[in-house]
Amino acid sequence: MSQLNETHDPGLKSWVASANVPNNGFPIQNLPFGVFREKGGNGAFRVGVAIGDKVLDMAALAALQPWQGLAADALQACTGSTLNALMALGTAHWSALRRELSRALREGAALQNRLEPLLLDRAAVEHDVPALIGDYTDFYISVHHATAVGRQFRPDNPLLPNYKWVPIGYHGRASTIGVSGQHFHRPVGQTRPAAEGDAPGFGPCARLDYELELGIFVGPGNAQGQRIGIEAAESHIFGLCILNDWSARDLQAWEYQPLGPFLAKNFASTISPWVVTLEALAPFREPFRRAEGEPQPLPYLSCDANSKAGAVSVELEVLLTTEQSRSQGAEPARLSRSNFRDAYWSMAQLLAHHTVNGCRMQPGDLLGTGTLSGPQEDEAGSLMELTLSGKNPITLPWGEERSFLHDHDEVILRAHCSKPGYPVISLGECTGIVLPALPV
Amino acid sequence: MSQLNETHDPGLKSWVASANVPNNGFPIQNLPFGVFREKGGNGAFRVGVAIGDKVLDMAALAALQPWQGLAADALQACTGSTLNALMALGTAHWSALRRELSRALREGAALQNRLEPLLLDRAAVEHDVPALIGDYTDFYISVHHATAVGRQFRPDNPLLPNYKWVPIGYHGRASTIGVSGQHFHRPVGQTRPAAEGDAPGFGPCARLDYELELGIFVGPGNAQGQRIGIEAAESHIFGLCILNDWSARDLQAWEYQPLGPFLAKNFASTISPWVVTLEALAPFREPFRRAEGEPQPLPYLSCDANSKAGAVSVELEVLLTTEQSRSQGAEPARLSRSNFRDAYWSMAQLLAHHTVNGCRMQPGDLLGTGTLSGPQEDEAGSLMELTLSGKNPITLPWGEERSFLHDHDEVILRAHCSKPGYPVISLGECTGIVLPALPV
Repeated sequence: MSQLNETHDPGLKSWVASANVPNNGFPIQNLPFGVFREKGGNGAFRVGVAIGDKVLDMAALAALQPWQGLAADALQACTGSTLNALMALGTAHWSALRRELSRALREGAALQNRLEPLLLDRAAVEHDVPALIGDYTDFYISVHHATAVGRQFRPDNPLLPNYKWVPIGYHGRASTIGVSGQHFHRPVGQTRPAAEGDAPGFGPCARLDYELELGIFVGPGNAQGQRIGIEAAESHIFGLCILNDWSARDLQAWEYQPLGPFLAKNFASTISPWVVTLEALAPFREPFRRAEGEPQPLPYLSCDANSKAGAVSVELEVLLTTEQSRSQGAEPARLSRSNFRDAYWSMAQLLAHHTVNGCRMQPGDLLGTGTLSGPQEDEAGSLMELTLSGKNPITLPWGEERSFLHDHDEVILRAHCSKPGYPVISLGECTGIVLPALPV
Repeated sequence: MSQLNETHDPGLKSWVASANVPNNGFPIQNLPFGVFREKGGNGAFRVGVAIGDKVLDMAALAALQPWQGLAADALQACTGSTLNALMALGTAHWSALRRELSRALREGAALQNRLEPLLLDRAAVEHDVPALIGDYTDFYISVHHATAVGRQFRPDNPLLPNYKWVPIGYHGRASTIGVSGQHFHRPVGQTRPAAEGDAPGFGPCARLDYELELGIFVGPGNAQGQRIGIEAAESHIFGLCILNDWSARDLQAWEYQPLGPFLAKNFASTISPWVVTLEALAPFREPFRRAEGEPQPLPYLSCDANSKAGAVSVELEVLLTTEQSRSQGAEPARLSRSNFRDAYWSMAQLLAHHTVNGCRMQPGDLLGTGTLSGPQEDEAGSLMELTLSGKNPITLPWGEERSFLHDHDEVILRAHCSKPGYPVISLGECTGIVLPALPV
């Protein structure tokens, strides 16, 4: 999946003018998939591909029957209201569709006249979660995050002994995954008793946090009992989105022993609407390297190919607006930046691990990376890390302080890939607003 | 939901003769729902209702349009290949359908001649998981299980401080839930290093276990951000099945910190094919009582109605066969018995807790109870408890010993409700066979 082909030619231009604007993020080299409908509409969502400030209606395109073979089959899989059918097809189909889309959207393409009527303004559409997510798994692949969180509990021994062997993950809740723009009420729940033996606290979460993550959409998957070997693992990855794993730290601290986080996470998770294919990310693959002295992974998690291009450089950032900042028209405050390439485990390792026991993965399943904190303190992907659980509140440019999120705060996660001589590939953004808790 | 009505009359007899055989478990007072097709068929599964040794084809019944109003709407919801549409309708519809089914299957019913052709032999059909399970949550509601497991890690302080306040639960894997008769390969995975600092072990699970549970199928559910209050909670429960939460104890011990069980559980979970409705269980409701001195639950988990009929007496048992016992024609060995009424948390408390933070429940979601061990040692619902993690192997009647499950072992979970003067209501059985691990 890391091989470059004609669709990655940095010189390609589109007849969609906005796609050629420098740094617009959605050039003809990107072509991410999502589902959309006219804003405020009540019809079914349709599959679309983003190009510049437009979205191409794939069902309408399929009605034109422009192609043959794999690309035609893949296009036909884009006529439903989710990406699941396309995700199920696999790399040969995905690649054939991308090539035809790239050719059809290039300057001088014969199809231009027929495609122009199929474009909508991206500003005029709304999105839904792009796939029916059967199962959602959240991992914990940033050793920097795991260490920073562990340090708050175990200063002398922050990392648990399994961390460098097991890609730690757990099952999340699929039913409350929403798309960017999601509003949700601050969760209510139990918190640790003030003193041992007391009744627990109960009320609105007082330590509401975001987690800066990427989401990985699974492609064909495996039958129950089969495994996806690490060499084949990337052929089962359709693409990436941005993910905010909102977290109620005070609920989490009280509930999570011994079976892990539950109500502290399942009130809401938010993903970005556009899924950038792994093929579109090929120019940003990087060697997957561990620091000197790290243990060699067990054989089922090791592979040569993986070591050559196991990582992806995806630049991530967290921004915040508040009721006050929006009323003042202030720019969003950037809280941190980090990069996906600093993760301890690769995407291929996650899939190989997840299926080594025969667990079945289905098209549209979502894997979260876990909080993608970087090695530097200012690369922390959550407030718990940035503020040391509230001990060091941050001051926002307009004067407000934050330890954790307040009502009406809006968190904006953004991600993109960039390198000299290549158009910026944006993963778009993932926003969400915290509403006040509903009375109990 | 605990009110008795005409369908609970213990004197009712059916024109399906096998339903009147004492202790057959599927009398006219039961009427559980499932999905079926002819054995070895490759068509779609259809909704059926079990009566005696027959299954009534509900899609064929719907084609007769025998009823009006709520019952007709509910019957129409039984024409797909899952129970989700029926589960979505709620108690008024469920109850209306049950009443009409009961009337139509009674001795002397006018519909007998038209229904007889719609009956198939239960022995001639096969089943699938009865609902599309969007999300699966597993709880931990037996304080006896939690104490027994905790004692193995913390002899002096077996129960964690949150146990008696928080109905502890976590998200499980929906994609690997199968129906009774499921065969699965012994999972492979990492295990704790022999010595600190060593590489972990890797290979087939050596401590494979079952867990005796019930599954609770969710009905209408709630929109994200809303709550299901405890008084309304039971109206969101469609019915119960038996659940085996197969567990790889050695994988679990190494992977579960800090985010909970993952690969140790998600290789397979097995449920029984028939869902017994909560209405059918009304004669077996019992007061929900806690021992003296237990803390009063927080208000969102407390309710008077709950204390009057919060529990259900469901008798559970675990049986085992092995390759040897089957070749000898030996009867299955009973390993333990327990009763659902001994659980620490009620079904209503589980739903109220799960949604107090706004988590969305959808029709067909499954809640596992967690291992239903009773207060006595021989009421343990897992081998880990029965054998003290292998320290005290059990001897089977035909001479074999077991600490944990061997390849080709078959675990049979059974459940039923009984009381004097009322026909036995069976939840059927939930079987599964362990196949050898696939080579890595």
